[in-house]
Amino acid sequence: MRVLVWNEGVHEANQHPANIGEYYPEGMHGAIAAGLRKFLPDDAEVSTATLADPEHGLSAEVLENTDVVLWWGHAAHDQVDDAVVERVKEHVLGGMGLLVLHSAHFSKIFRSLLGTTCSLAWRNEGEQELVWTVKPSHPIAEGIPHPIVIPKQEMYGELFDIPDPDDLIFISSFAGGEVFRSGVTFTRGRGRIFYFSPGDQEYPVYQQTEIQQVLANGVRWAAPEPGERVLPQVSNPPRQWLL
Amino acid sequence: MRVLVWNEGVHEANQHPANIGEYYPEGMHGAIAAGLRKFLPDDAEVSTATLADPEHGLSAEVLENTDVVLWWGHAAHDQVDDAVVERVKEHVLGGMGLLVLHSAHFSKIFRSLLGTTCSLAWRNEGEQELVWTVKPSHPIAEGIPHPIVIPKQEMYGELFDIPDPDDLIFISSFAGGEVFRSGVTFTRGRGRIFYFSPGDQEYPVYQQTEIQQVLANGVRWAAPEPGERVLPQVSNPPRQWLL
Amino acid sequence: MRVLVWNEGVHEANQHPANIGEYYPEGMHGAIAAGLRKFLPDDAEVSTATLADPEHGLSAEVLENTDVVLWWGHAAHDQVDDAVVERVKEHVLGGMGLLVLHSAHFSKIFRSLLGTTCSLAWRNEGEQELVWTVKPSHPIAEGIPHPIVIPKQEMYGELFDIPDPDDLIFISSFAGGEVFRSGVTFTRGRGRIFYFSPGDQEYPVYQQTEIQQVLANGVRWAAPEPGERVLPQVSNPPRQWLL
Amino acid sequence: MRVLVWNEGVHEANQHPANIGEYYPEGMHGAIAAGLRKFLPDDAEVSTATLADPEHGLSAEVLENTDVVLWWGHAAHDQVDDAVVERVKEHVLGGMGLLVLHSAHFSKIFRSLLGTTCSLAWRNEGEQELVWTVKPSHPIAEGIPHPIVIPKQEMYGELFDIPDPDDLIFISSFAGGEVFRSGVTFTRGRGRIFYFSPGDQEYPVYQQTEIQQVLANGVRWAAPEPGERVLPQVSNPPRQWLL
Repeated sequence: MRVLVWNEGVHEANQHPANIGEYYPEGMHGAIAAGLRKFLPDDAEVSTATLADPEHGLSAEVLENTDVVLWWGHAAHDQVDDAVVERVKEHVLGGMGLLVLHSAHFSKIFRSLLGTTCSLAWRNEGEQELVWTVKPSHPIAEGIPHPIVIPKQEMYGELFDIPDPDDLIFISSFAGGEVFRSGVTFTRGRGRIFYFSPGDQEYPVYQQTEIQQVLANGVRWAAPEPGERVLPQVSNPPRQWLL
Repeated sequence: MRVLVWNEGVHEANQHPANIGEYYPEGMHGAIAAGLRKFLPDDAEVSTATLADPEHGLSAEVLENTDVVLWWGHAAHDQVDDAVVERVKEHVLGGMGLLVLHSAHFSKIFRSLLGTTCSLAWRNEGEQELVWTVKPSHPIAEGIPHPIVIPKQEMYGELFDIPDPDDLIFISSFAGGEVFRSGVTFTRGRGRIFYFSPGDQEYPVYQQTEIQQVLANGVRWAAPEPGERVLPQVSNPPRQWLL
Repeated sequence: MRVLVWNEGVHEANQHPANIGEYYPEGMHGAIAAGLRKFLPDDAEVSTATLADPEHGLSAEVLENTDVVLWWGHAAHDQVDDAVVERVKEHVLGGMGLLVLHSAHFSKIFRSLLGTTCSLAWRNEGEQELVWTVKPSHPIAEGIPHPIVIPKQEMYGELFDIPDPDDLIFISSFAGGEVFRSGVTFTRGRGRIFYFSPGDQEYPVYQQTEIQQVLANGVRWAAPEPGERVLPQVSNPPRQWLL
Repeated sequence: MRVLVWNEGVHEANQHPANIGEYYPEGMHGAIAAGLRKFLPDDAEVSTATLADPEHGLSAEVLENTDVVLWWGHAAHDQVDDAVVERVKEHVLGGMGLLVLHSAHFSKIFRSLLGTTCSLAWRNEGEQELVWTVKPSHPIAEGIPHPIVIPKQEMYGELFDIPDPDDLIFISSFAGGEVFRSGVTFTRGRGRIFYFSPGDQEYPVYQQTEIQQVLANGVRWAAPEPGERVLPQVSNPPRQWLL
């Protein structure tokens, strides 16, 4: 299994917030990658890439050798090249797994795959978030406490403007009373997509064990079966093709 | 449109809680029926029935002349006759609408239609409940504030052991931090089912305008098109039946 | 209810096929509009527009005064202006209903709302199509025969690369053995979308009563409740906004 | 992984049809078990049980040591003891996987878990069945040809009266023109359920490689994660339980 953690890396580069280097010394991508390495099988290869890399680190060659991409973005969605987004989209439709994290609800790739505004309510006051499992039979919920308690987190609230998900796995509540569908899956083409909202540049959420476990479960679930990456295509079979 | 509000009526008969007669002088069924009459078209006929009625007020004749049943039960699920439950079930599968209210999550009719335990977490401390809309395009959400604020209500929390609903319309949060899928729809056979959790014998929730509006929306949505009530049946068509 | 039947109108303008004027003397849009007028309430306003109209007949003013758009396209998807597509999309996300017909599976508006390739298998040999109802409780299936028999139609077959629909209402089979999810609904934002595949420039399918009935049912179902058209938006509520 | 293939075994015991012993010398359960052994990992334990066994071979001890049950029944649904059905149901709700095969659409266990009549159309004239994949990203579709061609099979047609499935994976067409949702999944409680219709006492369908592969994929998908089998339960948490 070949996993690529993509992070725009802008908060880290700008040291904004100023103390981000304290809880994310290797960047959020570094923390996420380290968490995955703890929970995925030993032969899983976990690498990272950022916006500043050539082709944002998402060249055709890289994608052809990637099973699952995790995507974190916030301040620089607009700076992601449209051609790269299109390339990632084709790989997802052809079978590559995609995990969309937190503020990447507004990323080009997520909005393009979902077709909606992906808008939501938000408030950044460091509120407690409780993440409740509502589909315990789903592989992504395997071994996850009910609820996960996140001491301080940005609030994301409904209405979250997404299509009906294939599966609703987690619902969060916040100290202020809002709720959010915080763990949802989608299928687009042959690709499996998991959106998970906990995680932010201001709070060390990706250092939390249960969060790392959810992400590792998500990667395992989204990884395609071995085989060619094939975009669904038009065909024009003759009448008797089955004979 | 012919609507029947069914209530076991046991809390009312036993005056338990002692002050139930103050906020529900006509019983919960009376309050629910009055609320529906406010919001449904003038030609809608809204009647009530209780466990103590002959055949629980759910005779074959009554059901044949009913478009939508609302069901409230709590203390006496076991006293509902199995034959009556089976009869109601056949009407639902044949097209009759069904609204299942609050503690009727444990009613025989609901568990029999859903196939799961319908268990949940609960706590009765009069907590504030916020009811958030997550599918605003659904007719049941039409005109409903986001959120509905219920000052005091019993807490119902996840895991709510139900099958994946057709539509998830409302999610509630409670002051204690729990969340609950409080407004969900199901289709069984030709019948439409709406479960809505707000409403309890200890709090005047059914007197609240927004709750009445949700129930009226639910009745409108669940009402079948005019026509025969037909249970889905086995057929054995010959090969050439389409010619 | 204000309904707009949009057709690119290219097959009609080019008289391709040569006999299209025989079974569609007013164009496919004319036939569809006439069918709707038969089955919708008398006060429904049904108008038409084509690609050749200024702004393709889809100006901001027109859309603001439209409840449901039906969309037929095939030969000229690329000629539809991106700005117009974006405008239609915003109206759908804000609540306008959309019916997508036959070869419009490849229209810009449909692919943009769904996020997938929308590819499929096809064969144009005038095969019999049978349209089977699999969700009889859905308003769109109301009064529709099981199956609808279409004597001659282009074959559309799986794999139809769409996201899981909200509701699967119709499945078609073709004489050659293929199957197709021919009637499916989606919700995007506040808008309801119904895709229905029967209908083609070479066969008089839109003259068939049952097909007209399905489209009228679809329009009724997709029409929004009265009220403002509001695109889902980001909000940033203060902690105590509910007080 | 411990897999139990349950077959009522009545057709085999009665040699009805007379030649059943030719293509199913070990019974359908024997053929199904042999097929699973070919495609499941070497350490999978596959055993069989029939109606005639004590407690139908479904004692509490057996179920506690079973990860997935496959269920084939047809002529003797009524002879299955209600207490055994209840026991199997509790195990499914607690996490045990269940594959329901062909005519077991009418089994007590399936109807009890689904809540509908599970009725359908049928015709036994040995028609060709084509099984088309409509959700290629699902693990059960992994490696399965599109379509599977079954030379002779009983026709099962819509309307199949089931709740909306979690996932629709396969749709079949028959030579006579009918269609059927032949591969569908459900979740009930913590248990995963897969219904697959191909397979019959009169045709050697379970000897067909692709069918065996689908069943093996289904078993792998339905198998629970290791851990305790827990029926979802009511809880009554105090307000401050999270502190």
